[in-house]
Amino acid sequence: MSSINRRNFLKSTSLAALPSLLPLAPALAAPLTNGPAAPTGAPVKFFGDGEMFSPGDYLQQLQQVQSATVIVPDRYGNGGAVEALEKQFAAITGKEKAIYMPSGTLANQLAVAVLSGGNTKVFVPDESHYFRDEADAAQSVFQKRLMPLAKGQACFTAQQLQSSIEGLPQEEVFSSGIGAVLVENPVRRADGRMVPLEEIKKISAYCRSKNIKLHLDGARIYMASAWSGVSIKEYASYFDTVYISLYKYLGASGGAILCGDKIVIDQMPHLIKIHGGNMYGNWLNAAMALHRLEGTESRLQEAIKRANTVFAALNKMKGVKVSALDNGTNIYNLTLAKEIDGKKFQETLNKQYHILMPPPNKDNQTKLSVNETLLYQDTDTIINAFKNCLS
Amino acid sequence: MSSINRRNFLKSTSLAALPSLLPLAPALAAPLTNGPAAPTGAPVKFFGDGEMFSPGDYLQQLQQVQSATVIVPDRYGNGGAVEALEKQFAAITGKEKAIYMPSGTLANQLAVAVLSGGNTKVFVPDESHYFRDEADAAQSVFQKRLMPLAKGQACFTAQQLQSSIEGLPQEEVFSSGIGAVLVENPVRRADGRMVPLEEIKKISAYCRSKNIKLHLDGARIYMASAWSGVSIKEYASYFDTVYISLYKYLGASGGAILCGDKIVIDQMPHLIKIHGGNMYGNWLNAAMALHRLEGTESRLQEAIKRANTVFAALNKMKGVKVSALDNGTNIYNLTLAKEIDGKKFQETLNKQYHILMPPPNKDNQTKLSVNETLLYQDTDTIINAFKNCLS
Amino acid sequence: MSSINRRNFLKSTSLAALPSLLPLAPALAAPLTNGPAAPTGAPVKFFGDGEMFSPGDYLQQLQQVQSATVIVPDRYGNGGAVEALEKQFAAITGKEKAIYMPSGTLANQLAVAVLSGGNTKVFVPDESHYFRDEADAAQSVFQKRLMPLAKGQACFTAQQLQSSIEGLPQEEVFSSGIGAVLVENPVRRADGRMVPLEEIKKISAYCRSKNIKLHLDGARIYMASAWSGVSIKEYASYFDTVYISLYKYLGASGGAILCGDKIVIDQMPHLIKIHGGNMYGNWLNAAMALHRLEGTESRLQEAIKRANTVFAALNKMKGVKVSALDNGTNIYNLTLAKEIDGKKFQETLNKQYHILMPPPNKDNQTKLSVNETLLYQDTDTIINAFKNCLS
Amino acid sequence: MSSINRRNFLKSTSLAALPSLLPLAPALAAPLTNGPAAPTGAPVKFFGDGEMFSPGDYLQQLQQVQSATVIVPDRYGNGGAVEALEKQFAAITGKEKAIYMPSGTLANQLAVAVLSGGNTKVFVPDESHYFRDEADAAQSVFQKRLMPLAKGQACFTAQQLQSSIEGLPQEEVFSSGIGAVLVENPVRRADGRMVPLEEIKKISAYCRSKNIKLHLDGARIYMASAWSGVSIKEYASYFDTVYISLYKYLGASGGAILCGDKIVIDQMPHLIKIHGGNMYGNWLNAAMALHRLEGTESRLQEAIKRANTVFAALNKMKGVKVSALDNGTNIYNLTLAKEIDGKKFQETLNKQYHILMPPPNKDNQTKLSVNETLLYQDTDTIINAFKNCLS
Repeated sequence: MSSINRRNFLKSTSLAALPSLLPLAPALAAPLTNGPAAPTGAPVKFFGDGEMFSPGDYLQQLQQVQSATVIVPDRYGNGGAVEALEKQFAAITGKEKAIYMPSGTLANQLAVAVLSGGNTKVFVPDESHYFRDEADAAQSVFQKRLMPLAKGQACFTAQQLQSSIEGLPQEEVFSSGIGAVLVENPVRRADGRMVPLEEIKKISAYCRSKNIKLHLDGARIYMASAWSGVSIKEYASYFDTVYISLYKYLGASGGAILCGDKIVIDQMPHLIKIHGGNMYGNWLNAAMALHRLEGTESRLQEAIKRANTVFAALNKMKGVKVSALDNGTNIYNLTLAKEIDGKKFQETLNKQYHILMPPPNKDNQTKLSVNETLLYQDTDTIINAFKNCLS
Repeated sequence: MSSINRRNFLKSTSLAALPSLLPLAPALAAPLTNGPAAPTGAPVKFFGDGEMFSPGDYLQQLQQVQSATVIVPDRYGNGGAVEALEKQFAAITGKEKAIYMPSGTLANQLAVAVLSGGNTKVFVPDESHYFRDEADAAQSVFQKRLMPLAKGQACFTAQQLQSSIEGLPQEEVFSSGIGAVLVENPVRRADGRMVPLEEIKKISAYCRSKNIKLHLDGARIYMASAWSGVSIKEYASYFDTVYISLYKYLGASGGAILCGDKIVIDQMPHLIKIHGGNMYGNWLNAAMALHRLEGTESRLQEAIKRANTVFAALNKMKGVKVSALDNGTNIYNLTLAKEIDGKKFQETLNKQYHILMPPPNKDNQTKLSVNETLLYQDTDTIINAFKNCLS
Repeated sequence: MSSINRRNFLKSTSLAALPSLLPLAPALAAPLTNGPAAPTGAPVKFFGDGEMFSPGDYLQQLQQVQSATVIVPDRYGNGGAVEALEKQFAAITGKEKAIYMPSGTLANQLAVAVLSGGNTKVFVPDESHYFRDEADAAQSVFQKRLMPLAKGQACFTAQQLQSSIEGLPQEEVFSSGIGAVLVENPVRRADGRMVPLEEIKKISAYCRSKNIKLHLDGARIYMASAWSGVSIKEYASYFDTVYISLYKYLGASGGAILCGDKIVIDQMPHLIKIHGGNMYGNWLNAAMALHRLEGTESRLQEAIKRANTVFAALNKMKGVKVSALDNGTNIYNLTLAKEIDGKKFQETLNKQYHILMPPPNKDNQTKLSVNETLLYQDTDTIINAFKNCLS
Repeated sequence: MSSINRRNFLKSTSLAALPSLLPLAPALAAPLTNGPAAPTGAPVKFFGDGEMFSPGDYLQQLQQVQSATVIVPDRYGNGGAVEALEKQFAAITGKEKAIYMPSGTLANQLAVAVLSGGNTKVFVPDESHYFRDEADAAQSVFQKRLMPLAKGQACFTAQQLQSSIEGLPQEEVFSSGIGAVLVENPVRRADGRMVPLEEIKKISAYCRSKNIKLHLDGARIYMASAWSGVSIKEYASYFDTVYISLYKYLGASGGAILCGDKIVIDQMPHLIKIHGGNMYGNWLNAAMALHRLEGTESRLQEAIKRANTVFAALNKMKGVKVSALDNGTNIYNLTLAKEIDGKKFQETLNKQYHILMPPPNKDNQTKLSVNETLLYQDTDTIINAFKNCLS
């Protein structure tokens, strides 16, 4: 039985779905929770930050959860799997409280709105999601003026932030108050580059010295943590609030978590409600995130280890160069020599070896993203696939 | 047997879905799509408007869908099951376009906001969800002034609306513009009472004569339609926009649909985004609603038919009186004679006969809500259960 | 030289206009500041709360001020006559600080907005200017939900306020926070009726016990003070903020004063600016209000004394009845017997005797407002005028 | 002589208007309306854009107006001098309608808000008053996102505007709608530099081709018109709305005019009211602006002519250099040779010759602003004053 078949077998006999009638094979149950979501042989995807389950896999995963422990639904975000997830994230980030949010946009917007109080100006990285990818919600709904800094960089430095804040009196006659500061880490628009821990410490120290609140858009903070070795808790300690995405690499179909002081988080249920984000049942996302959260750090470490092995092997192949980015996380540059037909190479990897990657551009370059799907095949298989495609 | 077939076979018979009390009836599997969601013998609930699936049942239902036709996920509400659901509701309501919303609150708020344009005043029933149960979102986020009418009534009359609008110049020196009018039908805070069709026609005619836009909070419009015999499409025809809930009786864990003119609905994706309601994946709700939508009208008709049979039988029992409300939908009054121990009666029905109802109050009265769970047991079984509990 | 002549002489030779060339007669300056703005014989107006200067009189008054002490202009509301006025009102109200506002609407709106913070609900009298005559600014600009109480009454009682606040949990599922409470005193829409001091004390005590902030729309608080004998300072002591109009009876062409704690008032300049109310020069209003403020209380006492004399005399005339309102201030009911031709009576008073009053309605009734113009003619002259018109 | 006549006669000769230094020249009185506001010999101010009347002069000017034609007051901005002013400005700008505003900030904010409708992004010059000097009102009250262009320049070019608008899809994933575009002309933060007419035409043509509305912050448009020779009407023709200040050079103590299409201006009274800008009486500003408006263009032409004469003479003096700015209006560079004691020079001009200018900086440079006060002394007197101060 091939590994693919094995997987289908497990799926199709829906063992997980049979909670009470059938004895559960304990040997299966244990590794499933902490191991890869798919059996060996499933496609490896060198793009994206996570597994991004198809509906079939999603239901299969949740049925595994349900067969292990009956899922308790929330009601309007209260209780059940949602509450359990909130408690877990409060512990992970070391914050007093956490709350489930329907979207990262709402998490970012409400965090900044509450931290800013009645003040208008919010300092943000020019390349941040908050500045560029939230459709000007900050201005049109939350009545903030964003002050973008450090265009083309992953983040501003503490020095740039300080200069901008202290230079305001020269820029304006009638000034408006300074609200919060936002840092994104890692930064999607900067190919997942991280903000150096030392810079975060300086930014945090400056903000605290001025009593300015600081929010972390940590949608992908697990990527930063995995590649930098800095714990989520340490990262979170430098910020007043932290948002973490539930769907980018934690399996859920949507949703976000916002963590912070009780006095801040306690304002959120009302704000979520009035912005229309209070949904009746959210357990379908929360139960999945809770499930995949378990073991995600060790799986990412294993993925990094394997990526290092694979990329080292690739760099020994003729015409192939894989290199890490400065302050990079899970995104790497892949450059193929001119002689190699990049498009054909990519297609063959996909079709014959179930290894997916973005097509090379006209310079025969592309980005490879490392994520948990790297665990779906062993390194030798992957290395051989590349090798075969090159020849 | 191909692996797909094997898989579908095993999935559709999915043992997990079957309450442990009952023998498996494989013959049931086929008609499930259009029939009741649970096998005969599952608990009948005389409260709520729908089945309200437990997580286990939810996953089981979705796996049925998935095995019949592979679910296509949406991406940020675009495509897949979400698009299919939107198209279906546009057809059902006879409107140009429909859009998925994360919550009924957002659907109501955005509809009224867009219909009102820059105008401030919105006329609403005093007992409406929009006025009382949306945490003052209309004022605090959407900057509207609500004008509540007809306190204690299911809805204002056209005459009351007209008097209020025409009386404004006497009430104010500096007036603000008139935005939209909202009608809820049926009205939860009025025990599900309907607004008479004739009154809706008059309200609509008045609003159109004054070029005032009219929104229907039709969260439970399927209840009104089932009890009044007026089609969803006819109801919708009197309004500019209509919101219908996906979780109250259509099985989804959350979500709503808003239907209206293309020029209105096309403004929604941006508005949903800036209010933080744009979630990555929404197919878990959309696929379920699509699934349960099929056949819901005939199931409701069958439930009404059975309710009539059951209630007629109950009214023949000594000390039991069931009566419909004026303009009522699925909620009925149940009055027990003083001699009957109402609390014990209710508990026995629940524990011995799997028939759930709200506990009687000190006057030995309670409300019975009719919904699709009435199809889970045949009428004789239900009638006998009541009979036995009385003796 | 009679006072009329003296004044006309001064006016016509425009002595006041000559600041440096001519010595100022100090003996003249003093009584002018504190006396009526017009010479004996000018029209008495039994409507409105103040003198409401024509442009000619306005300029004449300001030139008097300028000749007495050179007016120092403000710059964007800072310094000069504006600062002097603010200091004077802080002292009058016993509050830490006062600030000039372009309008009473802005004063009310900003006070309530700041006192409410992020909370949505604001409890107001149904008949208040804030609720009815500010064009829904509270909702459309300041995102508040107003809770109107006690329709048809001058104000709610403390008990009504408490019942409304404590009843909220029964009215709503998802509640929004309680912001501020507003009291208007006296109430224009209630014919200038006052809120009894005892009720104000109770409302204030309740609000303080619940830590709810309380704002006084005291646009006409000088009327309440004059008729009740309660000092402005005592009234103000029960509230967190107090707004007083500058144009209704203090002579300015516009403008308002808002008084309160420093921490509240210090937020106002920024808020005035962003709402577009920051004008370059405001001294034309401030200097006038400063000027007429001096002596206004004694002039009002004198007006009341004369009104009592006049009305007592009128009540002795056949077919004439003047009566005070319950809790009334400067507005009185005048009822003429049917035999009297009310319209002709009113016109004759106006044309022949320079006594202006609103025309009687079909029931031969009208309102007489007492204000400083009553000082323009002596009581005998006024009484005789009425007498002559009756015969 | 009736008392009215006597009064007017005496008023119009109003002694107060005459600074004490000079002999009374009765022949001056008549042409005053169209001539300089002060008699020959009053201080010339080489700073600011207008005369900026002291309170004494202000009252004197208004009394002149009042004696010529009785001023009709407005009531809440309706009627009287305000209406007359609005009509005059509608004619001057060639727009359908004009409305009085309490401040330029409100005029700019409301114009842009209405022109933008529900769209969020507003493109503005980085150096504009709207972007830098309105305390972020656009974001915090009017919920706009400003897109500043061309930092350090008087204005963006049509090409820059087009690039920015067309580049948006590359900058954002979820975009927000494009509202209005704002041009300031001339630009205070660019030392009064003008936007070239050809560029205005291109910007206007581009905006019209894209159906994007265009607002002119023409606070000082009379300066641009006087120096460029382009009429106010032509400038206005390229824009949808135009704001002109009433206090910078038209004598009023505050206030602004906004002109545009009827459909736009008709929305303003309500918006002014809800933002708290509706003052009871505004005639004190309107009557003054109406008064000084008459003849302002010819006075400015005369001022330019005299400035040219004076500056030509100055440039012939040793160590003195006066030069116009590129695209400049009324602001000129003055550079003194190192040998000259700039501070002493400036002080002597002020004290001995009543010629005021800003003190030279450490490089012995300063700016000279040309305005109507240049008409207070004849050119020979001014030239000789400079000459004497140099020796």
